[in-house]
Amino acid sequence: MTVHLSSLDTEARIILNVGGTRFETFKSTLKKLPATRLSKLTEQLSSYDPILNEYFFDRHPGVFSQVLNYYRTGKLHYPTNVCGPLFEDELSYWGLQREDVEPCCWMTYTKHRSTQETLQILDSLELDTLRSSKDDIVKKFGWEDNLDYVQGRLPKYKKVMMIVWQIFEEPRSSTVAKVITVISIFFILVSILSFVLQTVSLFRIIEIDFVTVYINSTSTDRTPTLNTQQVHPAFEVVEWICNAWFIFEILVRFIVSPNKKDFCKSVLNIIDFLATFWFYCTYALSKLNVNDNEALDLLSTIRIMRLFKLFNHHPGLKVIITSMQYSSSVLWLLIFFVLIAVAIFASLIYYAERMTTKKSDDNMFTSIPDALWFNIITMSTIGYGDLYPKTMLGMIVGAVSTVAGLLIIDLPMPIILETFANFYTHLRARSKLPKTRRKIGPV
Amino acid sequence: MTVHLSSLDTEARIILNVGGTRFETFKSTLKKLPATRLSKLTEQLSSYDPILNEYFFDRHPGVFSQVLNYYRTGKLHYPTNVCGPLFEDELSYWGLQREDVEPCCWMTYTKHRSTQETLQILDSLELDTLRSSKDDIVKKFGWEDNLDYVQGRLPKYKKVMMIVWQIFEEPRSSTVAKVITVISIFFILVSILSFVLQTVSLFRIIEIDFVTVYINSTSTDRTPTLNTQQVHPAFEVVEWICNAWFIFEILVRFIVSPNKKDFCKSVLNIIDFLATFWFYCTYALSKLNVNDNEALDLLSTIRIMRLFKLFNHHPGLKVIITSMQYSSSVLWLLIFFVLIAVAIFASLIYYAERMTTKKSDDNMFTSIPDALWFNIITMSTIGYGDLYPKTMLGMIVGAVSTVAGLLIIDLPMPIILETFANFYTHLRARSKLPKTRRKIGPV
Amino acid sequence: MTVHLSSLDTEARIILNVGGTRFETFKSTLKKLPATRLSKLTEQLSSYDPILNEYFFDRHPGVFSQVLNYYRTGKLHYPTNVCGPLFEDELSYWGLQREDVEPCCWMTYTKHRSTQETLQILDSLELDTLRSSKDDIVKKFGWEDNLDYVQGRLPKYKKVMMIVWQIFEEPRSSTVAKVITVISIFFILVSILSFVLQTVSLFRIIEIDFVTVYINSTSTDRTPTLNTQQVHPAFEVVEWICNAWFIFEILVRFIVSPNKKDFCKSVLNIIDFLATFWFYCTYALSKLNVNDNEALDLLSTIRIMRLFKLFNHHPGLKVIITSMQYSSSVLWLLIFFVLIAVAIFASLIYYAERMTTKKSDDNMFTSIPDALWFNIITMSTIGYGDLYPKTMLGMIVGAVSTVAGLLIIDLPMPIILETFANFYTHLRARSKLPKTRRKIGPV
Amino acid sequence: MTVHLSSLDTEARIILNVGGTRFETFKSTLKKLPATRLSKLTEQLSSYDPILNEYFFDRHPGVFSQVLNYYRTGKLHYPTNVCGPLFEDELSYWGLQREDVEPCCWMTYTKHRSTQETLQILDSLELDTLRSSKDDIVKKFGWEDNLDYVQGRLPKYKKVMMIVWQIFEEPRSSTVAKVITVISIFFILVSILSFVLQTVSLFRIIEIDFVTVYINSTSTDRTPTLNTQQVHPAFEVVEWICNAWFIFEILVRFIVSPNKKDFCKSVLNIIDFLATFWFYCTYALSKLNVNDNEALDLLSTIRIMRLFKLFNHHPGLKVIITSMQYSSSVLWLLIFFVLIAVAIFASLIYYAERMTTKKSDDNMFTSIPDALWFNIITMSTIGYGDLYPKTMLGMIVGAVSTVAGLLIIDLPMPIILETFANFYTHLRARSKLPKTRRKIGPV
Ligand SMILES: [K+]
Ligand SMILES: [K+]
Repeated sequence: MTVHLSSLDTEARIILNVGGTRFETFKSTLKKLPATRLSKLTEQLSSYDPILNEYFFDRHPGVFSQVLNYYRTGKLHYPTNVCGPLFEDELSYWGLQREDVEPCCWMTYTKHRSTQETLQILDSLELDTLRSSKDDIVKKFGWEDNLDYVQGRLPKYKKVMMIVWQIFEEPRSSTVAKVITVISIFFILVSILSFVLQTVSLFRIIEIDFVTVYINSTSTDRTPTLNTQQVHPAFEVVEWICNAWFIFEILVRFIVSPNKKDFCKSVLNIIDFLATFWFYCTYALSKLNVNDNEALDLLSTIRIMRLFKLFNHHPGLKVIITSMQYSSSVLWLLIFFVLIAVAIFASLIYYAERMTTKKSDDNMFTSIPDALWFNIITMSTIGYGDLYPKTMLGMIVGAVSTVAGLLIIDLPMPIILETFANFYTHLRARSKLPKTRRKIGPV
Repeated sequence: MTVHLSSLDTEARIILNVGGTRFETFKSTLKKLPATRLSKLTEQLSSYDPILNEYFFDRHPGVFSQVLNYYRTGKLHYPTNVCGPLFEDELSYWGLQREDVEPCCWMTYTKHRSTQETLQILDSLELDTLRSSKDDIVKKFGWEDNLDYVQGRLPKYKKVMMIVWQIFEEPRSSTVAKVITVISIFFILVSILSFVLQTVSLFRIIEIDFVTVYINSTSTDRTPTLNTQQVHPAFEVVEWICNAWFIFEILVRFIVSPNKKDFCKSVLNIIDFLATFWFYCTYALSKLNVNDNEALDLLSTIRIMRLFKLFNHHPGLKVIITSMQYSSSVLWLLIFFVLIAVAIFASLIYYAERMTTKKSDDNMFTSIPDALWFNIITMSTIGYGDLYPKTMLGMIVGAVSTVAGLLIIDLPMPIILETFANFYTHLRARSKLPKTRRKIGPV
Repeated sequence: MTVHLSSLDTEARIILNVGGTRFETFKSTLKKLPATRLSKLTEQLSSYDPILNEYFFDRHPGVFSQVLNYYRTGKLHYPTNVCGPLFEDELSYWGLQREDVEPCCWMTYTKHRSTQETLQILDSLELDTLRSSKDDIVKKFGWEDNLDYVQGRLPKYKKVMMIVWQIFEEPRSSTVAKVITVISIFFILVSILSFVLQTVSLFRIIEIDFVTVYINSTSTDRTPTLNTQQVHPAFEVVEWICNAWFIFEILVRFIVSPNKKDFCKSVLNIIDFLATFWFYCTYALSKLNVNDNEALDLLSTIRIMRLFKLFNHHPGLKVIITSMQYSSSVLWLLIFFVLIAVAIFASLIYYAERMTTKKSDDNMFTSIPDALWFNIITMSTIGYGDLYPKTMLGMIVGAVSTVAGLLIIDLPMPIILETFANFYTHLRARSKLPKTRRKIGPV
Repeated sequence: MTVHLSSLDTEARIILNVGGTRFETFKSTLKKLPATRLSKLTEQLSSYDPILNEYFFDRHPGVFSQVLNYYRTGKLHYPTNVCGPLFEDELSYWGLQREDVEPCCWMTYTKHRSTQETLQILDSLELDTLRSSKDDIVKKFGWEDNLDYVQGRLPKYKKVMMIVWQIFEEPRSSTVAKVITVISIFFILVSILSFVLQTVSLFRIIEIDFVTVYINSTSTDRTPTLNTQQVHPAFEVVEWICNAWFIFEILVRFIVSPNKKDFCKSVLNIIDFLATFWFYCTYALSKLNVNDNEALDLLSTIRIMRLFKLFNHHPGLKVIITSMQYSSSVLWLLIFFVLIAVAIFASLIYYAERMTTKKSDDNMFTSIPDALWFNIITMSTIGYGDLYPKTMLGMIVGAVSTVAGLLIIDLPMPIILETFANFYTHLRARSKLPKTRRKIGPV
């Protein structure tokens, strides 16, 4: 009887030979998930071996134990000893969906998803291109279907364009390109240094005007009056030289650019153009005796934005910017939350101080915007000391806002930091690998 | 003889076929843990196969090797290559308790416990609900057993209530709801901006009263006296408009709320009501010529709390608050420990400075509360510079308290941060998954 | 011929049945590690099965594949899918040493070592003891071998001692103990509050003495002279009440303590005694008309150390202290390195400022100790602003020392933080587990 | 027909017995990766067993399932349950390249690469050497091929050199060496303490010169004039003693050094020599009546660099320096990025403040270098308060630069910190392991 039951039991069982490892389960188990490879097994399939009474599948046996368990328990868990994509490949072979994963394995699922995203983003940044091949450049210029090119008879000016383009746009492609890069960086730094040093009184000329004062009808006296300080003329010479280079560089780069529209849309090019253009503008205005006021000067700070051009020369800086973009949702959340906290605590401290200060002159917080500034400087733990509470109540509000601020700013930090660290470590891992990989032959 | 022993040995052994993989052990091993599935194996069970002389179990073979090892060594270790819940399912199948885990695996055990807790908490936050179905709303209003509803003949006013409720309470449910949300946020921001700008002297009117001074019996003179600054009347208009909206919004939301009691208990609604009520109160008081003093103003800061209503519109803010609640035990520990440290170092620096300062006017620390404030500002590394030690002894105490403060504040930080990061990453992982899952058929 | 080679080859092979899984290897492979279980296999062993021509071992098959690989490759790697102690148990069964592990797996090896250490330390802290059993208390008092106790006839005063001991030493053992705890904490806080408020001028009485001034021989005038401020007498009353409790508490606790010597050695008890003793001392001195000078006051800060007694009531605080002790080597390294950096940069900035300041009055750095203080305040990013460089050279030195300081302080931080987080998470994991575990039957 | 197909199917299959575990796959699968061990299998190989119709390989079966999957899917993933080097050993056995790994497993691949690098670097630091053996020292001196040494008849002066060398260069090799180390550290600390205290006015002698002033022709008066403060002569004595030791130590160490050239190249020795040399130089100059000006004093700060010699006595300090060197690329990236941000925000705040300040005297930012200093102090959250924006526009620029600064500095921090923590934890793991390991016998 036992034997009978048992043989019935054996009848109900099915053997799956997955890559040499035998798995056994009840036939009914495989019917639990309809419309999958395993639920549709019949003995007519070529994978069925009637002698051994088993089905053979040339797949990973270790991962299959996890797949089969999904049929048994109705719960799909990710294994943690194989890489995620490998498991997903197996899932798709067995006709399962990776979204069926249990909540406790979501993290595993989304982690390698985001790893793949990170790798794609890093690929799109084109960080490693040292030197494009000739064909790539031709493709950029859109000449690949050009009859001349196909016949190998590109006109000389086109060849020159390609060479010049590579010199100016791929900084490490050749010795000439490197020299141009160094010159470009040199002029950017000189221009900015000149901009900075102009403001130092040491490098300014004090023009003293004398005013003739009539003391009485017969005697006059000349009294010196301190006039506005003037920039030393040497700076003007330096700036003219720098801007000569900048206008030369931008013109050459514009002429040889394969796509003028894209060139004009680039933020770095716009900054470059505006900074150069503004220099000549200012000069023209001063010649026309338009008094340069502070507003003009403020606009001239655009030239310091040229420093962003250095970003082209360091992959790390590109990574910083990209990782900031990809963690911007947390960043905005952080800024938004900080602003709410700042607003609430600023109001509280403003009224706390105003209420409890006896002499109103002692109160440093003259308005809520003042208190907002105080709270920003406090929450960032800078604490200049230009404003601080003086009354007991103000101090208590200040202490609470300090604790709140520390928590609010510190809480989302690890998430932003992790995003950046993730990008950076992948970039570093990537740079250590060979560019060419073994080709897999066809089956 | 060897053969004999060996065959005896084989007799004592038992073969367990778990999902196709054969495990062998001594029968005596299985008796070590009484009252479990494996300790009660007999050949009468249907899982026994007399031909192969083995017991068949349709379970995960990989996890079973860990289970069997518990019988062998008496120690239950968690495997790290499968997800925790999967292992616990297997344990319960084999009649084992998950609490039997060894101390070295506690972390693994509790980690996925807390993962499941986190997921439950996130579920309870109702972060994703964009638009409830009609049935859900009816259920909220408690009309699901209503005869009218079952017959599909709900009175019109009830239908309107449901529509209006959804517009005001589910911000992203429809275009109208979105418009209402934008209007609501706009008025909150305008009201707060008005509140902030009122305190800026630029936007205040200085009322100058003239006092007639009698110089002598015949001549008088009018001397200007600077009177209190008055808020510009434009602000009053803005506030009236804002508060008109607020009273309209809160009334509508109250009327259509399915549960008036819960509505009144909500903290956000109380804030909303108080802020609106206070506005009309203040107005009435000023009409009654009650002088508005600073205490009244302080209470009016409650309107800035309306900013918390924005939390309804961003899941991230809810997550911040929730994660703070769940790490509050560490937070209080941190605050408590900091307060002890602050108290001790404040006393020390107060006496250190008082003892070694020669002229008592040089001493900035006039009392221990002053020193407490100094220590809070120092430990948070803000350092306004309003108070600082001037004597050698005070400086040494200050330096030691700085180091102690940094350590005390920094130590529990990672734990708080981890809680938040855990919540946030799960939330993000969750948002990437489809809402509907494959249904598992019955066995 | 191929067959012949092959059969020879089979002769050289050995089959190992480990827990049902067959492993095959060359016999020569097993000879590589002499004096281990596998190198000593002979067919005479009872584990040898002559029919199947294999050796049976009732051990974990998964871990064995890693063990066998040690014989094959001569390198012992830790598997990462099982818990460390489980692997070490298997190693010791197979006669291998866990120290043979490869350098790349040292981390794995030492990680679970330190996990076990952490668990032992946490056990030794006695964090969970809510209420000792009667037997445990008797053991503490050393009466377990006492004839009276064995016969159940302990004298009444001994029973009272035990009850009182539990009330005072185990704060959560009974309702009475909880009340005593609350009273004790209340008096500590009142005493400290009184200590703090005494220094506030609001609570001080200004004694005005009148000095009779002889204006001329006939008329005198009384001029008020501001005398020293006196502490309000109410504080004295409060302090007497508090100290009455403290002396009562310490006496009771001393009398009922099972081990007077250990009691006197406890740091908390010494603080408690000194603080109480000092109060009566000060009182006696003031009665004897000894002027209380600042030195006396400084010593009275010892009463604020009573706050440390609160540590007995919170396991988290014990964990903080313990984890600080266990990361003290890094802490001292940090402090030592910071001091070197501070000394070097202080010298540099002192001379940098002295050299380049034109007027010596402008120089804020009057000595190197001043510069040391400046550097400590700068490196901890507090920056009171009492001292700061004013010359270009001083600013550059200051900026470099800022960067250096940030790095030096931040670098060892994660290690200290990790130690604490490790302790804390284990503590939390531990508190979630049941105290009793299943008993494993004998083989 | 099915049977026929199936038998054909079986023909096409191949059985691989890897360490006792059978793997089955199609023969065609193994041809996908040409020129590997598996693609070249023939029945003539000795590993072929014609009876069982399988190939036997004495390798790790678990890892092989991952290897075989590479043939099946064309994708090589790293398993996460075994140590990386173990997998790489298997890869090289099967004739595969570890660089064929998929992008998603790069991190795993490079992680254990860098672990091995870290271990090599730690080895090269020679952190543990307590006491070199006699042979090692002889090798250092290059006497190992010396005939005298081989015959055991080294001249006495050479033996003395070796002993003295060990005393001075291996601080923990013997009691004498420990005493010398303590003396050396003592004199370094005394010398630096003397240097620091010389600048304190308390320890300086104020020389008062009297100037005879002729009041009128008959009476004169002597008016005291404050002359320059002089260093107390006791300091000179202390310095002479210290420098006597330093010159003795450096001379002895130079004489016994095995390689004079390497000795002179060592940075610590150069510092030591310069500091000692400068002391005698300064003395000579003062004797020659050359006025010691500040430039001389600044150079004398080199003596404080002697503190770096303490690094030889603590392995932790060596680890800090080394880990800084290995994360220097991120460090420079950080500094570079911060400088760009500082430059841009400094320009903006300079013009923002200049434009909107009404009275130019109120403006604290007199030049862009001033603004640069302000931004450095703000971004590091020090905030001395010597400079701060006073206008609304300046405050907004300041707030934005604060946020930007926090992000820019905090982002790369975890990467630098991780490098250090990695070094430190490996060092700690290493120190817990025994120095001698089991020897693996030959096959
Ligand atoms: K500050
Ligand atoms: K600060």
